[in-house]
Amino acid sequence: MMNHKFSELTLEDILDVEISDSSKPFITKLIYGRELKKLDIPTLEDDKCEVVGWHLGGARAEQLRDPRIVRVGLIQNTIVLPTSEPIADQRKAIHDKVGKYIEHAAKCGANIVCMQETWTMPFAFCTREKYPWTEFAEEAESGPTYKLLSTFAQRYNMVIISPILERDINKDDVIWNTAVVIGTDGLIIGKHRKNHIPRVGDFNESTYYMEGNTGHPVFDTPFGKIAINICYGRHHPLNWLMFGINGAEIVFNPSATVDNLSEPLWPIEARNAAIANSYYTCAINRVGTEQFPNEFTSGDTKPAHKEFGHFYGSSYVTAPDGARTRGLSRYKDGLLVAELDLNLCRQTKDEWGFKMTERLDMYAKKLSEASQTGFKQQIL
Amino acid sequence: MMNHKFSELTLEDILDVEISDSSKPFITKLIYGRELKKLDIPTLEDDKCEVVGWHLGGARAEQLRDPRIVRVGLIQNTIVLPTSEPIADQRKAIHDKVGKYIEHAAKCGANIVCMQETWTMPFAFCTREKYPWTEFAEEAESGPTYKLLSTFAQRYNMVIISPILERDINKDDVIWNTAVVIGTDGLIIGKHRKNHIPRVGDFNESTYYMEGNTGHPVFDTPFGKIAINICYGRHHPLNWLMFGINGAEIVFNPSATVDNLSEPLWPIEARNAAIANSYYTCAINRVGTEQFPNEFTSGDTKPAHKEFGHFYGSSYVTAPDGARTRGLSRYKDGLLVAELDLNLCRQTKDEWGFKMTERLDMYAKKLSEASQTGFKQQIL
Repeated sequence: MMNHKFSELTLEDILDVEISDSSKPFITKLIYGRELKKLDIPTLEDDKCEVVGWHLGGARAEQLRDPRIVRVGLIQNTIVLPTSEPIADQRKAIHDKVGKYIEHAAKCGANIVCMQETWTMPFAFCTREKYPWTEFAEEAESGPTYKLLSTFAQRYNMVIISPILERDINKDDVIWNTAVVIGTDGLIIGKHRKNHIPRVGDFNESTYYMEGNTGHPVFDTPFGKIAINICYGRHHPLNWLMFGINGAEIVFNPSATVDNLSEPLWPIEARNAAIANSYYTCAINRVGTEQFPNEFTSGDTKPAHKEFGHFYGSSYVTAPDGARTRGLSRYKDGLLVAELDLNLCRQTKDEWGFKMTERLDMYAKKLSEASQTGFKQQIL
Repeated sequence: MMNHKFSELTLEDILDVEISDSSKPFITKLIYGRELKKLDIPTLEDDKCEVVGWHLGGARAEQLRDPRIVRVGLIQNTIVLPTSEPIADQRKAIHDKVGKYIEHAAKCGANIVCMQETWTMPFAFCTREKYPWTEFAEEAESGPTYKLLSTFAQRYNMVIISPILERDINKDDVIWNTAVVIGTDGLIIGKHRKNHIPRVGDFNESTYYMEGNTGHPVFDTPFGKIAINICYGRHHPLNWLMFGINGAEIVFNPSATVDNLSEPLWPIEARNAAIANSYYTCAINRVGTEQFPNEFTSGDTKPAHKEFGHFYGSSYVTAPDGARTRGLSRYKDGLLVAELDLNLCRQTKDEWGFKMTERLDMYAKKLSEASQTGFKQQIL
């Protein structure tokens, strides 16, 4: 019997130690879909950040298309300074730390890097206080985070997905929860605003911003067609579906979610989306426990407190055939580099036939009926 | 190190034996969502059939509604006679065996019982031979299976869901893959025909029947509003969605699928559907390895053979909050009885807000556009 400190061990850690060698192949198949090979990537001289690489594998050689190999980098990070420090200092400290991870992702050959949701700030929406937190909001196309990442994108010939709190100076100064996609030339390819906003537990995001108005854009990059389903949007199969319909081959899901709310759901939803839509999904979760200066309640009858729950990291990648990597750490920073062959998307569509058999016209008609007031359910 | 014969052990069996007591609470939370309590039900004097009961739990007491407690029974069964025996004998042998399980489900207090897909016959669609297999097709409203189950439904005050191969004598004798719902008065409440038909591996079902024409009916029974998503329909989030939109509180997924094709996907899809739609799902898989008289190929470059892969059973129930039971056996018959409180459906909608935030009107419009020829993807 082991003496576990659960908060620091992942499911994978426990299975590694406790499952016998004879059981491992079967357990691996059932939990991860396939045995994946490690990717040989450089280590990082920083024991506060886990770095791990995986070959997703699974694609076959085709006669008429070359493999389309892409490496993605998923970054999960704790905040750096206490939330009581000046906004500019908090952001600068995160910029500096995550900047190093982006540089390391480049050394690992990553072509596309994505950070967690609102990666430049603490997830302060639990407080329902507008100030100072809304000061973290910045312009997508000209703010300090864009400027920093634009340099990295050019220097490393990378596409960078930067999920931030956006200040919309062209539209009444409103705030959005936005993923900015920066191309290898350092210019913005486009942005996507979070489509579905939670109203649960400490996730009072609807107090700060509305549902996104950017639709379901797919960004055509030199490294494949990519899209971003931000956080709570992963609970919505229609959201995942539309990114697929628009042609996405990789959908990133930058998130911020805590253990008591969602941890058992985390391995299910992004993985199911990969299966259902025959594309890769990259689920990235914030990590760490964040303290805030003033106490707040959580709508759960419990006393006021100053701490959000524990953001459990556990970022992972799933292939179109359902095979997935292990998750990153539950408690510390991490960089997961995954090598994908985008050809597996179409191959999986051919093999399973989910898109061919989806009967989209029937559902379009049914949802149109269902979204009308006075809709009559088909009940016998 | 244990000496496992993998085909006879489930993931759960292995975790039971190999995971330490100190790790079990964490592993249970991550894999099953919550620790569930066993239901105290009578044993069956037949060691060829596993019988197990679970309290799904998780619902809170409400002030204005009483709990709505329902027990469901999921039955998975091997065939009985060799597939070379006369059709009538094969069916009769299955009827006799499963009849005993239905009787036992009644003793366990089950209010609704559902069998696996085309439960009265071997899953002969691998052969692509029309005869004798199409002779298993029978009239939904008057065939021998209806007659048998009508008696049981009345005797035990049960709703019975009977997934069969249907012969449509009112429509040119065509065949359908159909779930027949029989009420407590022994009369048919209605039927549902499989909406999505596979074309993968040995699942040559499109050789025998077309996509269903019954929509997404929800059957209003004394034990809740129920629906049936047959087998391959579980890969289609839109199919699950429409049953939810029509008001389903429990969706049964009678299936027949084999280990090399889908086993890692099995714990994901029906569970994700429960989460996404805030209803209970009951995933039932055929069990056993079936041999056929004549050899057939599987479209996988391998030599002709007479055996379908292994149907791995592993039937399970998921609650709207994502908590799930363990799976039934991978190799033998099983009856899983689960006690549910239907109030948890609405409670989960209130808690998580997935339905409130789904933006159905937006998706109705988008899917209408996407289903038109000439649709232009939103690509930047």
